[in-house]
Amino acid sequence: MRVYYEDTDAAGVVYYANYLKFMERARTEWLAAMGFPLAAFEQTHGVAFVVHRVEIDFLQPARLNDTLDVTVEAVERGRSRLVTTQSCRRDGIALTNAHVTLACVETVHWRPTRIPKPLQDVLDPTG
Amino acid sequence: MRVYYEDTDAAGVVYYANYLKFMERARTEWLAAMGFPLAAFEQTHGVAFVVHRVEIDFLQPARLNDTLDVTVEAVERGRSRLVTTQSCRRDGIALTNAHVTLACVETVHWRPTRIPKPLQDVLDPTG
Amino acid sequence: MRVYYEDTDAAGVVYYANYLKFMERARTEWLAAMGFPLAAFEQTHGVAFVVHRVEIDFLQPARLNDTLDVTVEAVERGRSRLVTTQSCRRDGIALTNAHVTLACVETVHWRPTRIPKPLQDVLDPTG
Amino acid sequence: MRVYYEDTDAAGVVYYANYLKFMERARTEWLAAMGFPLAAFEQTHGVAFVVHRVEIDFLQPARLNDTLDVTVEAVERGRSRLVTTQSCRRDGIALTNAHVTLACVETVHWRPTRIPKPLQDVLDPTG
Repeated sequence: MRVYYEDTDAAGVVYYANYLKFMERARTEWLAAMGFPLAAFEQTHGVAFVVHRVEIDFLQPARLNDTLDVTVEAVERGRSRLVTTQSCRRDGIALTNAHVTLACVETVHWRPTRIPKPLQDVLDPTG
Repeated sequence: MRVYYEDTDAAGVVYYANYLKFMERARTEWLAAMGFPLAAFEQTHGVAFVVHRVEIDFLQPARLNDTLDVTVEAVERGRSRLVTTQSCRRDGIALTNAHVTLACVETVHWRPTRIPKPLQDVLDPTG
Repeated sequence: MRVYYEDTDAAGVVYYANYLKFMERARTEWLAAMGFPLAAFEQTHGVAFVVHRVEIDFLQPARLNDTLDVTVEAVERGRSRLVTTQSCRRDGIALTNAHVTLACVETVHWRPTRIPKPLQDVLDPTG
Repeated sequence: MRVYYEDTDAAGVVYYANYLKFMERARTEWLAAMGFPLAAFEQTHGVAFVVHRVEIDFLQPARLNDTLDVTVEAVERGRSRLVTTQSCRRDGIALTNAHVTLACVETVHWRPTRIPKPLQDVLDPTG
């Protein structure tokens, strides 16, 4: 993704909170690529992922007009919990590294619930 | 209100879209000061204001750490329509001037509806 | 472009200021496609475009996960002034229509200056 | 601070990245209250604080029109490093808890530098 003026701040670099936006965009595209677009989650399964915890290290700043690659990797899956590692990279160099813990919740009372079976199957390669 | 890093961009000034945030904060506080906090609108009256049109002139830039005053004035009231003029000022100097046209909508189908009578009464000083 | 959670608000639709972000992204890509990426402007020509005026009509709301096309068309070019019309569309339907007036400024004192000749030539088809 | 529409997302709650904005506003006000407004840092001392690491737990969501208190406490000070704990609270209940590690950098090459002595003195109550 491209860094636009909206993403930067007066220090000339990407504002720190905006990396969390980039990471969410990447998670959304990652889930969509596995067959789980946002709409499907809510309409088919009645669930959503909410972020429970973020640990993020800011290593180097991104700048206006940079092109960034944002990675997502599932590193741990519980019943309703999913831990991912995410990285924002420019030319292969990590600018930020993060662990993001997600909780699967049903969208009526927003309480934790089991990750839908079809998504579990995709997340657990050895089934 | 104070200009924070989040509001600025790599040109060192407030990002142009963010003045629309400042203007909405001011409208929210203005309605609250007249006895119509956001919650009251939705819960008591089942209505909300949505923005239909914005005309905004960017005269001078605001910068990091500036203190801005944002004004709101109702200039025209229709059945469901409310036109305001808003200005972002620093030390009395207008940095932006805008006309903002709002529509009162009911929050079930988001269709235009009459501005609640108690608010009409406040908006029309001569009754 | 895709509508992500970051773009929406508690009314379930895209927050009104965020259309201005979408429009700027489109202008940036449009200029880049004509051979004028952001970096080139500043480094080669020492100029930037700043927004002087926006008139925008919000016709219909965009929602989470929508795919939007954002158009840009130059409608008037002055010495330092460029007026564009922009539209955010979903499936060919305009959700917002806008006129955006840009000023070309030199990036030392941010004063209006002539639009660089190579860009003029691209903007003026009969040039 | 008040939660406005701009802060929320289509799930009806504050978008997760926006708590980082709230925390930065609080840090800015906290430093200003100790006699170090943003302008003073850059102009008097030629330094700025950049965020190196954030660990944040999202415990409960904030909603539109909520009033939040955001706390800041310095928990560890190094030569150029400052660790704070921050909490966003509603009616005394913590909605988010965070550890934020800041680095003091000089604003020419953005390299780590000693925290200015006057700020050290304020941060170290026993001197």
